[in-house]
Amino acid sequence: MSLDFNTLAQQFTEFYYNQFDSDRSQLGNLYRDQSMLTFESSQVQGAKDIVEKLTSLPFQKVQHKITTLDAQPASPNGDVLVLVTGVLLVDEESNPQQYSQVFHLIPEGSSYYVFNDIFRLNYGA
Amino acid sequence: MSLDFNTLAQQFTEFYYNQFDSDRSQLGNLYRDQSMLTFESSQVQGAKDIVEKLTSLPFQKVQHKITTLDAQPASPNGDVLVLVTGVLLVDEESNPQQYSQVFHLIPEGSSYYVFNDIFRLNYGA
Repeated sequence: MSLDFNTLAQQFTEFYYNQFDSDRSQLGNLYRDQSMLTFESSQVQGAKDIVEKLTSLPFQKVQHKITTLDAQPASPNGDVLVLVTGVLLVDEESNPQQYSQVFHLIPEGSSYYVFNDIFRLNYGA
Repeated sequence: MSLDFNTLAQQFTEFYYNQFDSDRSQLGNLYRDQSMLTFESSQVQGAKDIVEKLTSLPFQKVQHKITTLDAQPASPNGDVLVLVTGVLLVDEESNPQQYSQVFHLIPEGSSYYVFNDIFRLNYGA
């Protein structure tokens, strides 16, 4: 809990996307039973269902690249709100897709878990 | 407080962008002293400074159009987290710009205020 919220947001997102891109079936310990994920138009709750949703996505390889990363304190208890905009590349495609993702992180002991997670691809204007 | 979080998010964002696009100097009553705004790389706190930041933006006319709107409960107290992706058109420009914006809304009496607000334009991938 000695990290400032900007450093926490950077370290968390780096860890999260590295884990997502190498083996997203192992993301479960970042979520809890009360966690919610909105992925495009699907909404699921709980670590188990969230990991099932993420592993069921129809691609084998994926690479996230952060374009912007902004964080704000989200409660007096140390919660942190993070907005990421970035691009991702799946499988053998050569055209990156833009996305936006928001994380609401809650402190737990010396670490944080993801309470809210909303992901949206951004289609062209 | 009888609204579900999806309806609240829809009604709030409709009101917010209508007010922003017609007269953004009147947005102050949606923020409080503890509210924070990140607008691109600028970070300001408090209703007064937030409205000053918004009114100082270098355009006269602006029109927001929501593409996607997703909401999740953000606390047991009725907080709501909203992710908007959309496009906006400023002044006489004909090319809309994509943006992402997250609002953390907190209930207050029969209404809500904006606790956290993070806005980012999305540049091409």
